[in-house]
Order: sequence, then C-alpha cells, then structure tokens
Amino acid sequence: MKQVEALMRCQGADCHPELRTALEHLLSAGGKRIRPTMSILTGRMLGAPHDRLIILAAAVEMLHTATLVHDDLIDGALMRRGSKTLNAQWSPPATVLTGDFIFARSAKLAAETDHLPLMKNFAATLAIIVNGELTQLFSGRGNADREHYNIRIQAKTASLMEMTTRAAAMISPVPDAMIENMRLFGYHLGMAFQIVDDVLDFTGEQNEVGKPVGSDLLQGLITLPALYYMERHAQDPRLQSLVNGKFLLERSIMESLVQDIRKDDAIKLSLAEGREHVKTALQYLSHAPKNDERQALEDLAKFIVNRRT
Amino acid sequence: MKQVEALMRCQGADCHPELRTALEHLLSAGGKRIRPTMSILTGRMLGAPHDRLIILAAAVEMLHTATLVHDDLIDGALMRRGSKTLNAQWSPPATVLTGDFIFARSAKLAAETDHLPLMKNFAATLAIIVNGELTQLFSGRGNADREHYNIRIQAKTASLMEMTTRAAAMISPVPDAMIENMRLFGYHLGMAFQIVDDVLDFTGEQNEVGKPVGSDLLQGLITLPALYYMERHAQDPRLQSLVNGKFLLERSIMESLVQDIRKDDAIKLSLAEGREHVKTALQYLSHAPKNDERQALEDLAKFIVNRRT
Repeated sequence: MKQVEALMRCQGADCHPELRTALEHLLSAGGKRIRPTMSILTGRMLGAPHDRLIILAAAVEMLHTATLVHDDLIDGALMRRGSKTLNAQWSPPATVLTGDFIFARSAKLAAETDHLPLMKNFAATLAIIVNGELTQLFSGRGNADREHYNIRIQAKTASLMEMTTRAAAMISPVPDAMIENMRLFGYHLGMAFQIVDDVLDFTGEQNEVGKPVGSDLLQGLITLPALYYMERHAQDPRLQSLVNGKFLLERSIMESLVQDIRKDDAIKLSLAEGREHVKTALQYLSHAPKNDERQALEDLAKFIVNRRT
Repeated sequence: MKQVEALMRCQGADCHPELRTALEHLLSAGGKRIRPTMSILTGRMLGAPHDRLIILAAAVEMLHTATLVHDDLIDGALMRRGSKTLNAQWSPPATVLTGDFIFARSAKLAAETDHLPLMKNFAATLAIIVNGELTQLFSGRGNADREHYNIRIQAKTASLMEMTTRAAAMISPVPDAMIENMRLFGYHLGMAFQIVDDVLDFTGEQNEVGKPVGSDLLQGLITLPALYYMERHAQDPRLQSLVNGKFLLERSIMESLVQDIRKDDAIKLSLAEGREHVKTALQYLSHAPKNDERQALEDLAKFIVNRRT
C-alpha cells in the first residue's frame, strides 16, 4: 500500500503547484483504501505481477477519488472523511478541472498496466458510474423501489469494485472462469459495502460517520432501510407524501421518520441482504487458491458487513 | 466522416434518455470536425486500417467535445457555434456529469483502437489539456508574454492535434520516424490553428464568429495580437494597468484598445507567426507518401491560415 500511495502522490509531479497541493490534500484525507486493498489482495492471491498490480491499485483509487471530487461538488458537500472537501475551499471551475485531471491520470495509470481489455473495462466502468449519477439526477433521485435501488448502487459502488477484482484477475495467470469468479466476488462485495453504508447512515452515531443520522433520507435519497420500511408500513400516512421518489415533508416529520426506521426491522432486513451478498461473494472467492491473501479477502468481506463506520 | 458521426452518436445508446438528447444536441451543433478530418486523412495517407481509424477519429472528436462542455461551464459561456451551450440549458451538476460521460466514452473508444501506446498518449493528452486550463485559472490567465502564450496554446489546442496525427500514424504500417514527423505536423498545425483563432477574435465580424470583436481581451484573456501590440507600444499608458496578466480598465477603454490592436501591425505579425507554423507543418508532412490524402492535408493546412471564421 505504501507503493500505491507513493504512485498516487507522484501523479501531480509535473503539474501546477496548486493542483499538486489539492491532490496531496485529497490523498492525505485518507479513506479506507478498500478498493486498492481488494485489487492487491486479489492479484497477489492469483499470482499477478507485482508492478502492474501496484499501478492498477493506484488507477482504481484515483478513479474513485475523481468521482468523489465531482460528486461533492454536485452535492455541495463541504466535508468528507472528516476533512474539508475540495469544493469547500476552491471555486467550482477549479474543482471540475481537478476532477478531470485525476480522471486523466487514472486513465493513464490504467493504460500503463499494458492490458487492453483491462483498459476497455476501466473506461466502460467510468461510463457506468457517470450514467448512474445522471440517471439519479434526472429521475428525482430514482423511483422508490428495491429494484431501482439495486440498479443505482450497482452503478455507484459495485461496478468499480467488480472492475477492481476482475482487473486484478485479468493481469494474473488464471483462466477466464477465474476472472469471472473474481468479477462476481467484487460485484457482491460492492453491493454489500453500499448496503451497509446505507444502513450505517441510519444507525451510526453522528461523530462516527461525520453526518447527521439519516442524512441520506433528510437529503431526499431513499435507500434500502427506508424501502424496507415502506414495504412494511404501506399505510403510514407520511409515505403518502412521496412524490417522484422524494418525500415532501417538514424537517421535523422527516426526523421522526428516520427515528422510526432506526427502530424498525427494516434495519435487520437490510443487513440480512448485505450479509447475503457477502455470502455469495465468499462462494465465488472459494474457487480461488487457498492462501494468505484469500484469507485476508475473507476477513475483508467480514469486516465490510460488521463495520461500524 | 459519416461513419465517424454515426459512431459518435451511438455512444449514448445505452444511457439515460436525457443524456442521449444532450449528446445529440452537442454533436448536431457541429463544428468544423477538423480533428477527425486530420486523423482520417493522416491515417489514409499512411495506410492505417479503416475501422480503427474511424474509431480513433470519433475518440478524438469526443474528447474535444467533452473538454468544450466543461470549458463552457467554467467560462459561463451561453453560446457556441451559434447554438446554446449545454450549461445554458442544464444545471451545473448535469453539465459536469455529461462532460464526464463523454470523457468516459471517448476513453472507451480510444481503448477500442487496440493500441496501448496510443491509449497512453490519449490519457496523457487529456492530462495536459486539463493541467493547462488549471494553470490558466490559477495564474490570473497567464503571464502576459509570448513564451507563456505558446505554452498555453500548446496545452489548449496543439496537444490534441499532435495526438491526433501521431495516433493516426501509430496505427499505420510506418516507421517511428514517420510517426514523429506526423506528431510534429499535427503540433505545428495546432499552433497555427489557435493563433489564427486568436487573430480572428480581433478581426472577424461579430456575426461570423458569434462573439463581439475582441471578446478574448474583453474577458481578460491576452492572446498573441495583444502581446505583439504590447511589445510594440510599451509606452501606451493603458498597458500600465496590466496586473497579474489582466487589464484593469474600464470597458470603453478596453474597447478602444481592441480597436487599436485591430489597426496595428500586431495582427500581421501574429498571422505571420501562424503562417510560419503552417510552413513548418508542411515540411514535416513532405516526408509522407505523395497521394490524394497528403494533398488534402496540404489544403487543410492552407485553409487553417486563410479561413475567415
């Protein structure tokens, strides 16, 4: 991971000093680095060449970082991971361009893995992520049902994790069937990751996630716990105010809805769905060679459903 | 070119309907399609495979389109090529994401040329363009001298044209020396193209370029004609108000400065510099096989310096 960090930081070496500072700020703000960890463990488990794996891990994390920069700008988010976002400090033009620059450098890194199918997959994944965000933007944050929810989190989160483990397998000396197993492993882990994130938005303590409890719903984003609650309480009069995928309720009523969802079995049902994805992910993982890296990936999968932040 | 247009249009086939409409609008707004024309003529001149050439031409034009979408958003431009810009019709978030989507699809097309060095070059070019824009943004639109002007237009325009002709040569059955000749051909043509654009901003009629005469300078962007004027009239009291690369003058005084530049030899000197670039470009082109496409490229080069819009 130290090599991955170093490679990411040197991406700004030949660019404008302000941009270098911004890149430094973004990278030192941290994050769990789950995507590069997934890519390195998967690659090492399958015998991928070390140097290409480091490049892939950096490319994946930088693509993720670039999408966060544009996302925070779009959402007007001022904080992320306990640090100020770029748009909280910079003008929108500078923020747009910094995101573009990080996209460009992540694409360059992806090309440096010297693997064309990987590169195509990388570009296609970016298109899926962005199309997902646009769909959410245009559809009044999506239709409020689980089917649309699954499509949305697949684009938002699972697509990149799927690409990550698939790409690590692609540069490894393994047959196509193993690449497909690793793709599905990444996909289900990504679905679980996002579902747990969405549950934590309801159950986490404010200081842990750095956002008020139920912030997604308060901002109009209906996630899995809210959807299960709606299915179980179709008669709740507050749900009648759902228009075009958004609740038109006063803040205090929204807050009471958040509290009711927290107390409801909707949380348990959501977590069970997350656990089901992890279980499926581990089944796909079980086709890989049994070694230390596989054990670490199993631990990572368990961490993903059991984490509190 | 029809095949290129068709390939560009189908890039939105599997995405959200609103995004499809936006893509359609952007592509039908037209433009001179100089970059795909350069790529197709260069490739055909050197024997590149037809299908990959079409893909390359579409990738290059889509990369160009994506940068324009973000540029117009950043500049707050409402019109381009006589059509409304995307940001004039859509929210900033939708515009940012549409630009991202077009980047993603252009990267995917570039990967589909099945040529890794080309792909690396493509990603590196995007980084150069974006870094150039950021430098311009942070440096108060650049230091006001010709050296910085050249660096700026290289990043803004010549880098993509250089990539275009170089990439067309890369997928052709030619030695490295020819690839380098084609790169330099594209570079000098790109420099000439931007210089002539900057001259036309002063000399063009308002209805031809769709912008007021001298709009660059009025918006604080100091281009080659203004730089030559400054070198020739260092005692002009108006030039004393140049701070951090920007004139701090009243609008009416700026307009009188524009008129004086129009009448000055600064225009001739700028055009001469543009012609010099075209001459150098044609020297590099002269190493290519003499055929119809080479003739067409020579004509294109002459069109670039002699055009009125």
